[in-house]
Amino acid sequence: MPVAEIARKMLEMYPRDYNVDEQLLVSCIEACYDCSQACAQCADESLSEQDVQGFVKCIRLCLDCSDVCATTGNVVSRQTEYDANVTRAVVQACITTCRSSGDECQHHAEHGVKHCQVCADQCRRCEQACKDLLAAIG
Amino acid sequence: MPVAEIARKMLEMYPRDYNVDEQLLVSCIEACYDCSQACAQCADESLSEQDVQGFVKCIRLCLDCSDVCATTGNVVSRQTEYDANVTRAVVQACITTCRSSGDECQHHAEHGVKHCQVCADQCRRCEQACKDLLAAIG
Amino acid sequence: MPVAEIARKMLEMYPRDYNVDEQLLVSCIEACYDCSQACAQCADESLSEQDVQGFVKCIRLCLDCSDVCATTGNVVSRQTEYDANVTRAVVQACITTCRSSGDECQHHAEHGVKHCQVCADQCRRCEQACKDLLAAIG
Amino acid sequence: MPVAEIARKMLEMYPRDYNVDEQLLVSCIEACYDCSQACAQCADESLSEQDVQGFVKCIRLCLDCSDVCATTGNVVSRQTEYDANVTRAVVQACITTCRSSGDECQHHAEHGVKHCQVCADQCRRCEQACKDLLAAIG
Repeated sequence: MPVAEIARKMLEMYPRDYNVDEQLLVSCIEACYDCSQACAQCADESLSEQDVQGFVKCIRLCLDCSDVCATTGNVVSRQTEYDANVTRAVVQACITTCRSSGDECQHHAEHGVKHCQVCADQCRRCEQACKDLLAAIG
Repeated sequence: MPVAEIARKMLEMYPRDYNVDEQLLVSCIEACYDCSQACAQCADESLSEQDVQGFVKCIRLCLDCSDVCATTGNVVSRQTEYDANVTRAVVQACITTCRSSGDECQHHAEHGVKHCQVCADQCRRCEQACKDLLAAIG
Repeated sequence: MPVAEIARKMLEMYPRDYNVDEQLLVSCIEACYDCSQACAQCADESLSEQDVQGFVKCIRLCLDCSDVCATTGNVVSRQTEYDANVTRAVVQACITTCRSSGDECQHHAEHGVKHCQVCADQCRRCEQACKDLLAAIG
Repeated sequence: MPVAEIARKMLEMYPRDYNVDEQLLVSCIEACYDCSQACAQCADESLSEQDVQGFVKCIRLCLDCSDVCATTGNVVSRQTEYDANVTRAVVQACITTCRSSGDECQHHAEHGVKHCQVCADQCRRCEQACKDLLAAIG
């Protein structure tokens, strides 16, 4: 099931009010979880490449990105006692990390490494979803 | 996008061979990420309930389940140098944790708490997906 | 054993060169792991308070801080293919999160909640260790 | 500061009763956090080895072990509404994972890889601390 569908159902039952646009929120939550998974798997597939030496930077950045996206997905999933400073800083870190990881995977994708293309797509999508949410929360 | 779709595309490009049934694997990966998100959000929504005292056990178990599912999703996403003992033990811990968390959320759902129903459904689905994978890897 | 001792031993055997001051690095790694643990436990102890309603904000911020510190500890522990943008953004997010969580715990500590004092101390220490590292990496 | 010192101070202020031996508990919490950090750093240092191909299994198992120890450290840090089944299953998974990761790192250590010796020591210590806690909780 898409994470967005679960997150949306949950938000509709949230016991208090919240001020963020629901669609931007669920898109960001989903993109973070999707990207965290894609990066964990991309790091692993890169580790199985015959030329693993050529994938060292990709593995390192995908590990960072998987961790950062998981944490961002958790922080953004929480509405209780929302702290704008924390959300902004964490989402900003996620944008920067997805950019670096996405750039590195895109580079491999352009040399025909298909799992890096899948991962780069998720990094770009997560970077954009975080930017959209950041613009909305100001 | 469903996590299963990303995981399947990635697996199709895996540079080595792997021995697990692809469908069981992607179902388990998706169920773990979905349940990790649902539990993080259910803990947060429970924290916003007026009767938060009545949700203390639910919050605690959902926090455990969110952590365990995230770790299980990562371990199961990795195919490189697969270690059957590790996978079995982690998947077994996930089954037990989803059972406890699912039981507690089901109890609240039966008393009309709708976000606990959404979460209980994901816990049950993840418990089953883990059992199916465990049966397949022996 | 202090995490700093483990991290220092490991860094002394790092196969490549790295450019960051070793003492600042191990202090930051240790402070992140210490703070992640303190926040996880403080959220749990707050959940056991008789007046749990009065600790909702503390629980939420400690959960965020525990996640952010764990991720920052991981990112800062990695030296391979160091990406200054990622490290800076993640460490910055950690400073902001430790500040919010530390302020909230300090507030409870001033009203006599002793576990919040222990946690606030770790949040302040982690905030400072991250600032020191950030100043050094520029 | 050793994690055990923080965890002990926090436990002394726990608002409710708990039934586990305090010393076994804080030793296990500390060992989990220490091992999680050691494994994250060992995976990274292995990724920087000239012969990275020879460290692929070590990297994979250390990533698993870092994740599993972090989750176990969190679960064991929580005393509220303690669920013996969850704790047992998670601690058991941690024992198995530390065994596999420790064996692999020990193998490299015997061939002179010093960061793997540091990591193997933490894996062995965490495996033992988890076994001691498991024996105590029955």
